[in-house]
Amino acid sequence: MNYLGNHLLVELYNCNTSLINNVVKIEELLLEAVKISGATALNSTFHKFSPHGVSGVVVISESHFSIHTWPEYGYCALDIFTCGTEIKSEKALDFLKEELGAGSISVTEVKRGILDFPVKLLHKPEVSEKCAI
Amino acid sequence: MNYLGNHLLVELYNCNTSLINNVVKIEELLLEAVKISGATALNSTFHKFSPHGVSGVVVISESHFSIHTWPEYGYCALDIFTCGTEIKSEKALDFLKEELGAGSISVTEVKRGILDFPVKLLHKPEVSEKCAI
Repeated sequence: MNYLGNHLLVELYNCNTSLINNVVKIEELLLEAVKISGATALNSTFHKFSPHGVSGVVVISESHFSIHTWPEYGYCALDIFTCGTEIKSEKALDFLKEELGAGSISVTEVKRGILDFPVKLLHKPEVSEKCAI
Repeated sequence: MNYLGNHLLVELYNCNTSLINNVVKIEELLLEAVKISGATALNSTFHKFSPHGVSGVVVISESHFSIHTWPEYGYCALDIFTCGTEIKSEKALDFLKEELGAGSISVTEVKRGILDFPVKLLHKPEVSEKCAI
């Protein structure tokens, strides 16, 4: 398949409820996960809900990481959407699963932008000449 | 099914290549789509890539809207992740399909946070008392 993006939809169950209600910690963890994956963070925005829950997104050169937490249910919805072949999404996922104390997870992998062009598809470039189109 | 979130993964093909390379316009359209859906925008961050492509995310009270564009392929990856029963994701999608000039689209709907609790699940509250947990 000739595609542009790789999207992991991750359900994290039975997480550390106190930690997933801590917006500062969640932002730290997501930024660290981006680093671990080898992706490049561009911008991020995180929000703490009242009385509980956190939403946050890191836009990366290679698409985005996002998380939404429901501490009252011990649940987090995590998305790791990347493009290119060099990003190690699984390493980021292993790190977050461990740090969030997830008791169980479910992962669905979706290929995004499946295009019928007879050439190798290149993801959007930022700095690296290797990726330049 | 008892679930927390509704996630539309949308592939938009054959879009207006000039428009999907315009970060200002893409941000305007995504924010307008959020409004049309009835969701509440909290924060947003958009980035223009060089030489082409835009990535942007709007964090909403009800999760997020995100878009990544590849003008060189006329393609956009759109995600509309919402919680609660009052958000009209389809209206936002119809608006964006039209505005981006998409020649064709494909939509995958994924339920997020399917939990085995014997109670009605409530999404995270912000202001509305109706949604308060």
